[in-house]
Amino acid sequence: MKLWEKGTTVNEAIEKFTVGKDRELDILLAPFDVLGSMAHVTMLESVGLIEKDELPVLLDSLKKLYQHALDGDFKIEEGVEDVHSQVEFLLTQELGDLGKKIHSGRSRNDQVLLDLKLFTRSGIREIVTAAGQLIDILLARSEQHKEVLIPGYTHLQVAMPSSFGLWFGAYAESLSDDLELLLSAFRITNQNPLGSAAGYGSSFPLNRQMTTDLLGFNNMNYNVVYAQMGRGKVEKIVSFAMANLASTLSKLAYDVCLFTSQNFNFVSLPPEFTTGSSIMPHKKNPDVFELIRGKCNKIQGIPQQIALTVNNLPSGYFRDLQIVKEIFLPLFSELHDCISIASLALEKLVVNEHILDDPRYDYLFSVEAVNKLVLKGVPFREAYRQVAEQIEKGEFKPEKAITHTHEGSIGNLCLEEIARKKSQIVDNFGFEAIEKAVSALLQ
Amino acid sequence: MKLWEKGTTVNEAIEKFTVGKDRELDILLAPFDVLGSMAHVTMLESVGLIEKDELPVLLDSLKKLYQHALDGDFKIEEGVEDVHSQVEFLLTQELGDLGKKIHSGRSRNDQVLLDLKLFTRSGIREIVTAAGQLIDILLARSEQHKEVLIPGYTHLQVAMPSSFGLWFGAYAESLSDDLELLLSAFRITNQNPLGSAAGYGSSFPLNRQMTTDLLGFNNMNYNVVYAQMGRGKVEKIVSFAMANLASTLSKLAYDVCLFTSQNFNFVSLPPEFTTGSSIMPHKKNPDVFELIRGKCNKIQGIPQQIALTVNNLPSGYFRDLQIVKEIFLPLFSELHDCISIASLALEKLVVNEHILDDPRYDYLFSVEAVNKLVLKGVPFREAYRQVAEQIEKGEFKPEKAITHTHEGSIGNLCLEEIARKKSQIVDNFGFEAIEKAVSALLQ
Amino acid sequence: MKLWEKGTTVNEAIEKFTVGKDRELDILLAPFDVLGSMAHVTMLESVGLIEKDELPVLLDSLKKLYQHALDGDFKIEEGVEDVHSQVEFLLTQELGDLGKKIHSGRSRNDQVLLDLKLFTRSGIREIVTAAGQLIDILLARSEQHKEVLIPGYTHLQVAMPSSFGLWFGAYAESLSDDLELLLSAFRITNQNPLGSAAGYGSSFPLNRQMTTDLLGFNNMNYNVVYAQMGRGKVEKIVSFAMANLASTLSKLAYDVCLFTSQNFNFVSLPPEFTTGSSIMPHKKNPDVFELIRGKCNKIQGIPQQIALTVNNLPSGYFRDLQIVKEIFLPLFSELHDCISIASLALEKLVVNEHILDDPRYDYLFSVEAVNKLVLKGVPFREAYRQVAEQIEKGEFKPEKAITHTHEGSIGNLCLEEIARKKSQIVDNFGFEAIEKAVSALLQ
Amino acid sequence: MKLWEKGTTVNEAIEKFTVGKDRELDILLAPFDVLGSMAHVTMLESVGLIEKDELPVLLDSLKKLYQHALDGDFKIEEGVEDVHSQVEFLLTQELGDLGKKIHSGRSRNDQVLLDLKLFTRSGIREIVTAAGQLIDILLARSEQHKEVLIPGYTHLQVAMPSSFGLWFGAYAESLSDDLELLLSAFRITNQNPLGSAAGYGSSFPLNRQMTTDLLGFNNMNYNVVYAQMGRGKVEKIVSFAMANLASTLSKLAYDVCLFTSQNFNFVSLPPEFTTGSSIMPHKKNPDVFELIRGKCNKIQGIPQQIALTVNNLPSGYFRDLQIVKEIFLPLFSELHDCISIASLALEKLVVNEHILDDPRYDYLFSVEAVNKLVLKGVPFREAYRQVAEQIEKGEFKPEKAITHTHEGSIGNLCLEEIARKKSQIVDNFGFEAIEKAVSALLQ
Repeated sequence: MKLWEKGTTVNEAIEKFTVGKDRELDILLAPFDVLGSMAHVTMLESVGLIEKDELPVLLDSLKKLYQHALDGDFKIEEGVEDVHSQVEFLLTQELGDLGKKIHSGRSRNDQVLLDLKLFTRSGIREIVTAAGQLIDILLARSEQHKEVLIPGYTHLQVAMPSSFGLWFGAYAESLSDDLELLLSAFRITNQNPLGSAAGYGSSFPLNRQMTTDLLGFNNMNYNVVYAQMGRGKVEKIVSFAMANLASTLSKLAYDVCLFTSQNFNFVSLPPEFTTGSSIMPHKKNPDVFELIRGKCNKIQGIPQQIALTVNNLPSGYFRDLQIVKEIFLPLFSELHDCISIASLALEKLVVNEHILDDPRYDYLFSVEAVNKLVLKGVPFREAYRQVAEQIEKGEFKPEKAITHTHEGSIGNLCLEEIARKKSQIVDNFGFEAIEKAVSALLQ
Repeated sequence: MKLWEKGTTVNEAIEKFTVGKDRELDILLAPFDVLGSMAHVTMLESVGLIEKDELPVLLDSLKKLYQHALDGDFKIEEGVEDVHSQVEFLLTQELGDLGKKIHSGRSRNDQVLLDLKLFTRSGIREIVTAAGQLIDILLARSEQHKEVLIPGYTHLQVAMPSSFGLWFGAYAESLSDDLELLLSAFRITNQNPLGSAAGYGSSFPLNRQMTTDLLGFNNMNYNVVYAQMGRGKVEKIVSFAMANLASTLSKLAYDVCLFTSQNFNFVSLPPEFTTGSSIMPHKKNPDVFELIRGKCNKIQGIPQQIALTVNNLPSGYFRDLQIVKEIFLPLFSELHDCISIASLALEKLVVNEHILDDPRYDYLFSVEAVNKLVLKGVPFREAYRQVAEQIEKGEFKPEKAITHTHEGSIGNLCLEEIARKKSQIVDNFGFEAIEKAVSALLQ
Repeated sequence: MKLWEKGTTVNEAIEKFTVGKDRELDILLAPFDVLGSMAHVTMLESVGLIEKDELPVLLDSLKKLYQHALDGDFKIEEGVEDVHSQVEFLLTQELGDLGKKIHSGRSRNDQVLLDLKLFTRSGIREIVTAAGQLIDILLARSEQHKEVLIPGYTHLQVAMPSSFGLWFGAYAESLSDDLELLLSAFRITNQNPLGSAAGYGSSFPLNRQMTTDLLGFNNMNYNVVYAQMGRGKVEKIVSFAMANLASTLSKLAYDVCLFTSQNFNFVSLPPEFTTGSSIMPHKKNPDVFELIRGKCNKIQGIPQQIALTVNNLPSGYFRDLQIVKEIFLPLFSELHDCISIASLALEKLVVNEHILDDPRYDYLFSVEAVNKLVLKGVPFREAYRQVAEQIEKGEFKPEKAITHTHEGSIGNLCLEEIARKKSQIVDNFGFEAIEKAVSALLQ
Repeated sequence: MKLWEKGTTVNEAIEKFTVGKDRELDILLAPFDVLGSMAHVTMLESVGLIEKDELPVLLDSLKKLYQHALDGDFKIEEGVEDVHSQVEFLLTQELGDLGKKIHSGRSRNDQVLLDLKLFTRSGIREIVTAAGQLIDILLARSEQHKEVLIPGYTHLQVAMPSSFGLWFGAYAESLSDDLELLLSAFRITNQNPLGSAAGYGSSFPLNRQMTTDLLGFNNMNYNVVYAQMGRGKVEKIVSFAMANLASTLSKLAYDVCLFTSQNFNFVSLPPEFTTGSSIMPHKKNPDVFELIRGKCNKIQGIPQQIALTVNNLPSGYFRDLQIVKEIFLPLFSELHDCISIASLALEKLVVNEHILDDPRYDYLFSVEAVNKLVLKGVPFREAYRQVAEQIEKGEFKPEKAITHTHEGSIGNLCLEEIARKKSQIVDNFGFEAIEKAVSALLQ
C-alpha cells in the first residue's frame, strides 16, 4: 500500500531498490514523527481544518503511538513504505477517515524534514551531555596529575617540558571549542520547516508560528523553498560539527596509543582494558583507543560523503536525499559510543611518574637555560648561542625545577576558566526550554 | 573464549566496543577463510608441520565448513571474536588437538589479509560480470536508436546535434575504461599475502609459492612488511576503482533524470518503474535513477573515508584496520545492486522520437551551416561570421540532414570497436585460471 | 640567514623544498605579524622584559613596518625564511640589538598561530560584508519579482507553483544560516594563542590577558598545548564554514545555469555577461555562473584536504602544518571573488515573465485543485483520487490564480524577518570592538 | 581578441573572472597544443581540407613554436584568452589566412582534451622515471642493511623482529604496486580524443585513426560524446593513481619521522638535512620528511576535490572543467619534487645498528620461543601458554639469533623478484613507442 498508488503496481525489484533501508532507519524517526503530527493537528484544529472534538481523539491516539515508539514497540510493516505511511495507516485503522486528516497541509517532504530536525536536536543533546562528562573527567585528571612532567615534543623531537596537567587539560579545552561549533549546528537545525509541504508551501491557511512554538523551535525556516533546501545541508553541517568533535577524540586516542608504546611508556591501561595476540604471548594492546581513533576517523569522512551526494543538485526535492538519511542517522550512536568508551577508559588510564628521569629527555630543559640567561641580562640570541655550544660539547646539564606562571602554563592550568567556557556553551543550547515545550505538547 | 586470553577477563563494555560489527561482517568472509585454511594446511603438510595422514582429515572437515558457508549456515557464536576463531573452534570441536594445528605458521593478521583478498577477488568478478551485461545493453540500445537525433549541449545550452546512438554508446565506452581501472585494482589485489604472519614473517619453513599456486594467485606480496602494509591500501585502491565505475553510473542516472523532466522529455519510464507523490496526483517520478545516482555518489565518498582512517599511520598492523572492513565490505553488494537495477531500467527506458522538430533546437545546426560554407571554400572564421549574422537577424534556417562519417560520430558509432575494447579487458582478468585453481583445491 | 643556524649550512635542495611557498604566502601575514609584535612588546615592557624607554622606539618602527605591509611594500628577502625572520631582521637592521628583543617569550609557533588568527579574523570580516551585500541584493530581487510565478520542481518534475520571490528569497535565507555557522568559526578563531610559545608555554612571567585585550580577542586559548593544537583545527573549521557558504553559491549558480538553458528559459544574462564558442556562432554561454559553481565546488574540497594533512598526527607541532597554510590562505580571496561576481551578475540577471503560460506546466496546479476540494469538505485522499482521475483522462483544467498566505509562502515572503535574521547574526560578530582595539594599538 | 566575439564587448570584471588562471596554466600546455596542431593539420591535408603545398608551411611554423615552448619563450599575451587562441594568433600573424585554417574540424573542447592528455602522458613518464629511481635506492639500501634488526610493531607495541632489509624493501614493493595502478591510469589517458570537436563530432571527413597514429596514442576514445566525458574523469583517475603513490611516500615519511624521534632513534639525518628551532638550541628536526608527508597528504585530497567539481554534472561540456585544470596541472611537479627529495634524503639516511640490544625489545622474540617449542612437538596453543607464563613471571630470556627462510622474510628478501616486478610494469608503459611517434612528427 502506497499513499500515492493509482492502479499500477510498481515493479518488485524497483520497489525493493527504492525502499532501500527506509524501513529500518525510519524506526529511529518514529517518536519524532508522532510528535510532529501532534503539533500539526493541534495547529490544523486552530485554523479550522480539523473539528474541535476531533483534536483530542487524534492526540490521544498519537500519544499512545509515541509511547510505543519510545518503548521500542513501533514497527514498520512489510509493504508500508516509511514511517509517515505507517503512522497514518495505524491511525486510520483505529480512527477511520479521521486518521487520514493528519496529512492535510503537509507533504512527506516537510514531514521528514521535521522528523530529521527533531531527531537531530535530540541526538545532539545526548552528544553534548556525554562530551560534557568527558570534559569533566579530563579536567579532573589534569588537576590530579598536574605535577607529573612529561616531555613536550615538536616534530616528535623532545622539545620542552610538558605535564599531564597540560595534556589532559588541552583535550578538555579542545572539546569545549567543539561544543561551540556544535552549538551553531544546533541553532541552524533548531528552526521549524513544517508548513513548507513539498517545498513550495500550501494553499491552506497554516499557522507556522504556532507549530514553531509548540515544538520548542527557536526560529522558523521562513522561506518554504529554503526549508526544503535545508535537507542535506543541515545534515552536512551537523555531521561536520560532529566530525570535528570526533577529530579531537581521534587525536587524543592517537596520543594514548603512542604513549602506551614501549618506546614512550608514559601511560598504560589496566589488563582488562587491553587485548592480546593469537601468536605473541607478551602482547597487551590498546585496541580500545585504536578503535576510537578508527571510528572517529571514519566519521570524519561523513561530511564529504554527504557533500558528494547533494552537491550539484539544483533546488527542489530529489530522492537522492533518502541516501543522506542512511549516511547521517547512524552517526549519533557511533559518536556517542566513542565518547562514552573514551570516558570509561580515560578514567582508568594509569599515569606513569618519573618519566623525565630518563636522560634522553635532558635537552627538554635547554630553553629554560636560555631563558635564565636572558633574565640575567644576556640578549636572547646570545643566550641561545651559549646553550647551543654547551649542547654541542656535551656539557649541558639540565636544571629540572621549572616555574611557569602565566595563564595556561604548567604552573597555572586555568582549569576553572576552561570549565566556565564549557558551562557557558552548554547553557546556550537551551535544552530546558525545548524540554518544556515538548512536555507541554505530550501532557 | 579468545585465542589470546590468559586469565584476565576483558571488561564487558570494552569487549562489546572492540568486537564491533565483526561478528556480522565476518560471515561474508567465512567461505574464503576456510578456503585459505585448506591451502595453508596443504602447504603445512608439505613442509612437515602436519602429518601426512592428518591432512585428509583436516581437508574433509574444512570442505564441509566451506559448504556450510556457501549455504549460509555458518554462524559466529556469541563470545567468539571473529571468523578465524570460529573456524578453529569448530575444527577443534570435531577433531580435537588436530584442529588447533591449522594456526601454525600464520597469524590472524595474514589470515584476514588473505580472506579480504579472496573476498575482493570474488566480488570484483561479480561486478565485472554485471557491468559487462550493462555494457551489452547500452550497445544494443545505441544500435537500436542510432537514427534518433537529440540535442547535444555544451554549457547546457543547445549546441550541436547528437543522437541516442551516441548517448547510449558513450556510457558503454565509459564503462569499458572503468573496467580497465578495475583490472589494475584486481591485479594489485590478486597477490598472495599468506605467510606474512603478523607482518614480520615466520621462523617456520613456509612455502609461500605453494599457497600462491594453490589459491590461483597471480603473484605474491613478497616482502612480509609490505604484505601487511597492503591492508587498507588495497581496499582504498579497489574502492576507488569501484567509485569510478559508480561515477559513470551516477552521470548516466543524472542524464536520465534530466531527460525525463517535462522540460526535456527525451525519455520516459514505464509507469511500473516510477513512483508518485502523496500530495500531487500527477507525479510519475524517476526515483529509481535518483537512487542509483544517490547510492553511487555515496560510494564515491568511500575511498576518502578509507584514506582518513589509514592515513598517517606508520607501518605495522593497527586495530583501526578493522574499521576499514566495515566501510569496505558492503560496497560490493551496493554497487552490484545499482548496476543490476540500471540494466533492468535501461532495457525498459522509452525513447522519444522527433525531439528535434521543436524549433527551440534549430540552432543546433549552425555549425553544419558554417562547415558547408567552409567546404565551399569560405575560410572558417569568415563562414562563422556569416552564419552568426544570419542568426542575429533571425534569418537562420537549419538544414537538418546531417552526414557525420568519422570514427565515433553519429553516422559511424564504432560499436564493434567498443565491444572489442570491453572483451579484451574482461579477458585479461583471467577469472578462469582462478576458478580452475579453486576447484582443484576443493575437489 | 636562519634564526636557528649554528654553523652547518643546510643542503640547498632541502632548503628550497622546506621553504616552499612560504616567502610568497607570508606576505599575506605581514601586517598581522607586525600587529602581533606590537601587542607582544607592549606586554613585555609591562612585565619588565623590555625597558620603559625601549618600548616607544620599538612601537614606532613597528608602526612603520605595518604601514609598509598595508601599502604592499613589504618584501621577504631571498635567504630569509619567513615573515617572522624578516620582521626581526628589519628591526635589528634599524635598531640593533633592541630589535632582537621582540622574540623573547615567544616562539615562531605561537607567532604564526597569532598571525593566522588575525589574518582569518580580517578575512572573515570581508566575507561577511560581501555576503551581507549579496543577501541584500537577493532580498531586493525577491521583492521586485514576487508576482512572477515559475514552476516548482520535485525530482525535476513539474510539481507545484513557485515564484521568483520564493527563489531569490530562499538563497537569502540560506546565506543567513551560512553566516551563523561562520560566526561560530569566527568565535573559535577569535581567541588568543600568544604566549603558548612552542606549545608548552614559557618560563617568562608573560601576561596573556594583556595581549588578549590589546588585540581585541574575545577570549584566550588558555591551555598552551591546546593553543598549539588549534593549528590546523581552526583552519579546518573556518574552511568548512566557508565551504558551506560556497555550497549555497554553487547551488544558486546551478539553478541559474539550468534556468538559462533553452529548455527552461526562465532567466537570461545580458550579452556582455556571456561568452561564445569558437565554432558555434549562436552560443551565449553562462560561463560566469559555471565558474562560480566550479570554484565553489573546489572550495568544498578544502576541509577534507586539511583533514588529510593534519589527521592522525599526535599532539605537538609538526612542519606538516606549513602545508595547511598554502591550502588555507588563498581561500579567502577565492571565495570573496565568487561572492562579488555573483552579486554583480545577479543584479543584472534578466527575469522572464509569463513562464507558466506554457501548457507543459499545467499540472503544477493539481494540488491546488485537490486542496480546493478538501476545503469544500472532501477528505484529502478522496480529493486526491478525483484529481488524479481527471489527469489520467486528460480532463484536468488548471486554475492558475493562487493564494498562499502562510509564513514563507508565495504570498507572504517574510523578507523582513529574513533581513532581521541576517542583521542579528552580523551584529554578533562584534567587528567594531575588534576595530577599536586594533586602532588603539596602532594610534 | 576572442575567437568568438561578435560585436559586444564582455564586461571587464566578468572577463577577469572567467579567464582566471588560464593564462599562466596554459603555458604548461603550449608544447602539447602545438604538437597536436601538427598532427591535426597533417590529417587535414590528407582529407583535402588543406592544400598539399600549405602543409609544409604550417608545419614549419608550428615546429618553431614548439621549440619556443620548450625553451620557455612562449607567452600568452594580455587580451588573449588561452593557449589555443595564442597559437592561432601567432600563426595568423606569420602566415595570414592560412593560419586560421588549423581550427577547421576541431573545437577548443577537443583541443584542450588533447593537450591535457599529451601533458599527462608526459608528466606520468617523469613520475615513473623518478619513482623507478627511488625504488632502486630502496632496494639498494635494503640489501645494504639486511643484517640490521629493528623491532617490528603491531599496535605500535613491540611485536616481532624486523630488519632494515624488510623495511626498505617493503616500500620498494609498495611503489611497484603504485606503478601498476599508474599504468592503468596511463592506458586510460593514452587514447585519442581529437575529432570529437565540441563533444558531438564533425561533419568534416576527419581521419581520426591517422591522428591517433601520428601522436603515438595506443587507442582512440571512439565515441565523441565519451571523448568529451573523459574530461574531468581522466584527471580524477590519474590524480588518484598519483595520490596513491603519494600515500606510500607519506607513510614512508611518517616512519622516518617516528624513527628519528629520540624515543626510537633508529635512523638519523645528516645535519645539513635538518632544520633547527628559533628558541630551542638542541633541535635537529626532520622537516624534510614532515614536508614530504604534508605535501603528499595534500595531494591525497585532489581526487575528491575533482570529484566534487565534476560530480552531478550531466553529459556535455561545462566551463566548470576549467577549474579542474588548476587543481590538476600543478600535481605533477609537486609529486615529482616529493619523490626526488625523498630519493636524495633516503640515500643519506643514517641507519643505527645494535638497536635490539636495548632490553625493552626483548619480548620481540617470544614468538620465536613459541615456534621452537612447536618444532619440538608441543602443540601451538600449549607452547603459547608456556611462554606467556615465563613472561608473566619475568623469566623469559630471548634468544636473539633468528633464521627466517621463506620468501619475503628477513632471511630471504626476494629483492630481485621485486626489481623484476617493477621492470615489467615500467616496460608496459611503452614510452619508447610514443617517443618514436612524436619524433617522427617533429622531424
